Amino acid sequence: MPEELPHPSLAEIRIERVLHALADPVRLHMVRELATLSEGVACGSIELPVSKSTRTHHLRTLREAGVVSVRPSGTARITSLRRADLDALYPGLLEGILNAPH
Amino acid sequence: MPEELPHPSLAEIRIERVLHALADPVRLHMVRELATLSEGVACGSIELPVSKSTRTHHLRTLREAGVVSVRPSGTARITSLRRADLDALYPGLLEGILNAPH
Repeated sequence: MPEELPHPSLAEIRIERVLHALADPVRLHMVRELATLSEGVACGSIELPVSKSTRTHHLRTLREAGVVSVRPSGTARITSLRRADLDALYPGLLEGILNAPH
Repeated sequence: MPEELPHPSLAEIRIERVLHALADPVRLHMVRELATLSEGVACGSIELPVSKSTRTHHLRTLREAGVVSVRPSGTARITSLRRADLDALYPGLLEGILNAPH
């Protein structure tokens, strides 16, 4: 079974870290993909032109910033966007980013 | 007279660069200060706990990302937030960031 990973609480999330996490093209792509889904996904199911270790690094950056949650589910880990938390902390921010031309 | 500095056009502004520019605590502080002003300011008038060269570096990062404009005015340079441009490109983004707890 995968272990539980640490996540920042709402009070621990910092805007600078959220912005840094979203400022990378690969991580922004992951967030855009997650935003299209109503449920979380196994992180491997998002197609990315990067190695598995790079993917893991990016996921950790997003999780530690408070942008995504990664939860064990059986033998897998399920990643989902912390949309409600981000919308509560920074109303408008995520929508503004997701709607950006790309 | 200070020379005219290059600025990205609206079409050249990239969300990743905007987010990177805003992800730094000193630059975010500059943007928050600029957002409180109805007019641009000489960049030296924003109090910052950094050296002049660091300030110049941060201002360049903000300008090159499209977050601020820096225009010659007599012998000075006047910095202002490109609020209308950012709001047009990413509605909600700047408000969400400016309203963030800090």
